[in-house]
Amino acid sequence: MEGKEEDVRLGANKYSERQPLGTSAQSKVYKETAPAPLFEVCELQSWSFWRAGIAEYMATFLFLYITILTVMGVSKSNSKCSTVGIQGIAWAFGGMIFALVYCTTGISGGHINPAVTFGSFLARKMSLSRAIFYMVMQCLGAICGAGVVKGFQPSLYLTKGGGANVVNHGYTKGDGLGAEIIGTFVLVYTVFSANDAKRKARDCHVPILAPLPIGFAVFLVHLATIPITGTGINPARSLGAAIIYNKDHAWDDHWIFWVGPFIGAALAALYHQVIIRAIPFKTRN
Amino acid sequence: MEGKEEDVRLGANKYSERQPLGTSAQSKVYKETAPAPLFEVCELQSWSFWRAGIAEYMATFLFLYITILTVMGVSKSNSKCSTVGIQGIAWAFGGMIFALVYCTTGISGGHINPAVTFGSFLARKMSLSRAIFYMVMQCLGAICGAGVVKGFQPSLYLTKGGGANVVNHGYTKGDGLGAEIIGTFVLVYTVFSANDAKRKARDCHVPILAPLPIGFAVFLVHLATIPITGTGINPARSLGAAIIYNKDHAWDDHWIFWVGPFIGAALAALYHQVIIRAIPFKTRN
Amino acid sequence: MEGKEEDVRLGANKYSERQPLGTSAQSKVYKETAPAPLFEVCELQSWSFWRAGIAEYMATFLFLYITILTVMGVSKSNSKCSTVGIQGIAWAFGGMIFALVYCTTGISGGHINPAVTFGSFLARKMSLSRAIFYMVMQCLGAICGAGVVKGFQPSLYLTKGGGANVVNHGYTKGDGLGAEIIGTFVLVYTVFSANDAKRKARDCHVPILAPLPIGFAVFLVHLATIPITGTGINPARSLGAAIIYNKDHAWDDHWIFWVGPFIGAALAALYHQVIIRAIPFKTRN
Amino acid sequence: MEGKEEDVRLGANKYSERQPLGTSAQSKVYKETAPAPLFEVCELQSWSFWRAGIAEYMATFLFLYITILTVMGVSKSNSKCSTVGIQGIAWAFGGMIFALVYCTTGISGGHINPAVTFGSFLARKMSLSRAIFYMVMQCLGAICGAGVVKGFQPSLYLTKGGGANVVNHGYTKGDGLGAEIIGTFVLVYTVFSANDAKRKARDCHVPILAPLPIGFAVFLVHLATIPITGTGINPARSLGAAIIYNKDHAWDDHWIFWVGPFIGAALAALYHQVIIRAIPFKTRN
Repeated sequence: MEGKEEDVRLGANKYSERQPLGTSAQSKVYKETAPAPLFEVCELQSWSFWRAGIAEYMATFLFLYITILTVMGVSKSNSKCSTVGIQGIAWAFGGMIFALVYCTTGISGGHINPAVTFGSFLARKMSLSRAIFYMVMQCLGAICGAGVVKGFQPSLYLTKGGGANVVNHGYTKGDGLGAEIIGTFVLVYTVFSANDAKRKARDCHVPILAPLPIGFAVFLVHLATIPITGTGINPARSLGAAIIYNKDHAWDDHWIFWVGPFIGAALAALYHQVIIRAIPFKTRN
Repeated sequence: MEGKEEDVRLGANKYSERQPLGTSAQSKVYKETAPAPLFEVCELQSWSFWRAGIAEYMATFLFLYITILTVMGVSKSNSKCSTVGIQGIAWAFGGMIFALVYCTTGISGGHINPAVTFGSFLARKMSLSRAIFYMVMQCLGAICGAGVVKGFQPSLYLTKGGGANVVNHGYTKGDGLGAEIIGTFVLVYTVFSANDAKRKARDCHVPILAPLPIGFAVFLVHLATIPITGTGINPARSLGAAIIYNKDHAWDDHWIFWVGPFIGAALAALYHQVIIRAIPFKTRN
Repeated sequence: MEGKEEDVRLGANKYSERQPLGTSAQSKVYKETAPAPLFEVCELQSWSFWRAGIAEYMATFLFLYITILTVMGVSKSNSKCSTVGIQGIAWAFGGMIFALVYCTTGISGGHINPAVTFGSFLARKMSLSRAIFYMVMQCLGAICGAGVVKGFQPSLYLTKGGGANVVNHGYTKGDGLGAEIIGTFVLVYTVFSANDAKRKARDCHVPILAPLPIGFAVFLVHLATIPITGTGINPARSLGAAIIYNKDHAWDDHWIFWVGPFIGAALAALYHQVIIRAIPFKTRN
Repeated sequence: MEGKEEDVRLGANKYSERQPLGTSAQSKVYKETAPAPLFEVCELQSWSFWRAGIAEYMATFLFLYITILTVMGVSKSNSKCSTVGIQGIAWAFGGMIFALVYCTTGISGGHINPAVTFGSFLARKMSLSRAIFYMVMQCLGAICGAGVVKGFQPSLYLTKGGGANVVNHGYTKGDGLGAEIIGTFVLVYTVFSANDAKRKARDCHVPILAPLPIGFAVFLVHLATIPITGTGINPARSLGAAIIYNKDHAWDDHWIFWVGPFIGAALAALYHQVIIRAIPFKTRN
């Protein structure tokens, strides 16, 4: 109780008459959910736990299938003009995240991305056991999705790069790492903002749009960083493509697509908890 | 009653405090609707039944008209750069489904696609008589829509392929069938998720966005599989274009665009009923 | 009262248990608004009447300014690849309609198009005096918007066609007229469906998305018919561009861009009133 | 109280039966908020004030990072066809504004643009001290964002223009100023319409879509005016790119990208207060 009042005192509510343009009314109370425990045995006995994992597997499978197939369709053509183009690739990644988050958000939370799961775990929104289960299912889904695409045209797949993430010519590994960190920050920052419990309490109608800005965030990061790394910001996507492609130079840079997204997600969780929610500055209750 | 409670016990409600990020509150009850009967005579006496069929006819007519006209505009130009491009074709298909589902969802359910109707029938959401009536109207609408496009430039229409679906050079018939199955799975899975009765009960505001992810699903499948088959995932669309084009090689692969979508829709219905809704595992009431 | 009950008996409510997938619950009552009178003197004394006209003027001004400027940017470049392309033009038209309908819908109804105003008048949603006032303001706004674009680069404007609608080479005048009729039908049908009073009553949350499918309808018709006529479906847009361009061949086909949209809007109003609302078949009250 | 009644009498409510198509019901009362004071000392003591500034900094940082990186990706390639193209640049600007307004609207109002802040100040929605604080934070964020992009490839950045706004060859400075004025008018007019307090009262569900038309407005202005000035309509964006690029010709036209947006924002505020809200004509209370 005390924590809630403290937050209201610190928060934007105080001077409601002088709030800047567009600030929504903030009269409703909200409940700070307790942090999730690290391990939770009873979770393993619920169908919703296993169902969530299956939903993450299926969503990541479909995500890799559609996106890598789009990448291959663009790669194999000599003239980009007769394909959906690089912009079409960006739409495939962003659009799939939009549709899949919309479809799975009520089942598993709609992560489809180990970096998002990692950020949620850091913010204590889920147990460690659930986080690891999600990541394993996401990686399995990604491998299967990329595998099906390779099945269509195996030789072309290997010649044309297989949609694997590498740091492109003209950029250093540091550039690639930086691009992954900031790109994942954009994504996880959007995910946190869109799902903020405080926001839901203030204006219950806002979250219905949540999958749309999340999908757009993915689309936008692809617009910007496809020239640098092909854009990972999703370790499962990078791992799936790398395992199915399985050539040396895809593995050389592979650490970047795990370290970068995890740092970006951690920074976004930190920014959200410290600056936006101001949790460390609140009095304990 | 018992079935409802059972589902709640199995469901995601159980550990509401530890739900992953983005899981919406699930306090509202929902009603499992009874499965529709196979035949229903009284339905035939209601205006809403016939009106639904007319709406499906009109929507599929407009769908084929706009999309095939866009395809012809791109096909007839030598440089794809001076057209809306392949990406523009994908937008035409996805955008029309978005707008038409939005417009007809309150009248007929907004299927505009025999595969969606088939999936709904399998999930016992509609009677067999209604399903067959919808499919016939959809096919008639598609034939008329493609016919009007041919009327604008009959000779060009025949030279440039008429928007008919064929398995493109470099892919086997198995590739085409697989692409149709998974593509339709993506679409029907999105339709089921967006219209889930349980979801509506949990979070009444979510379904307002439903036509948008459904339209995006169609857009995304087109981005990915236009290079393989031109993308069917809608038997009425494939039939309409094939009948108006009416050349041998369009008919050779035509079975793929019925068998693939129907298998995909059946798998999506199965996935939704077994995994997401867990209906077979519930105790009978 | 009786009319309302009659409609409910005829309507989709009857067999609610067996409604197809996606049909929303229809429990709320709705009020059939009385038809607007032809002339209404007191309207002229209200600020909201004049304000609505100014809003229509301003919206159509901005619509023509942004869209014709986009068309000129694409036209003047030798390579369409280094511009936003034809697809970008379609986005400009559709996107502006989305944004402007969103902004002006609460002020004037957000028509920005004499064909939409004509359809509303036919459906007896507004008085004749208001309809004519709107059309005049829309045409004035369109002329001013196109004039500002010409002001940027007058000579280029005249060389490159000035965004005026003409039936392109390879198509007959009948093709152009048909494309305008069906295109406007798509638009006005979407407008009617999105704003249906019955729909609002049934599911109060649906109309919030209304500007989006309306904008998409405009975008989609442009994707399909830019190769035929450059796409009018809006007599004010065609008139504004023609007056500022003012060359003979722009005037030769100009009647098509008034007759076509007005026929299309009338057909959409007829379809909506007779099929969707079934108004002629209801008992009088 | 009197002011409110006066507005209702003047407003669209009067003839509710005869409102044009799409006018939403207007039964709810709304509260005219008192104008913000010029200076407000107590604001400086609230965490929400400083947090809002940090959120504006972070949002403008991410805005410049993604957009300028996209611009550089397109600029450095010889063939625009193998990039996301000019249309992709327009999506980057519009899409980022959509996502960032969505994320920061509850924290700071989601301006991310000194012209929007200036318009809000003119409409007395925020104090002068807050407006200046926002603008400083926005400019700092923009400089840092562009700086990171330069860090990736410093030499290419300088050769390829660095995303700085200049009036392009073939246009006069007057053209550039005009394009900036009308473009910012479109943006700020959309912002005001989307956040109108009266609108929120009338139809509480409409504002949930607000970030989408605002993002689209930015996208559309970019489609139209990239050929003229590269499109500023955001002095922070222009300043950030100019400081990091720092070549003479970028500074020559720089005043246009402050004077233009500020005039446009002032005109939009004037239009909204005088025409749409009719505030000067109301009787004082």
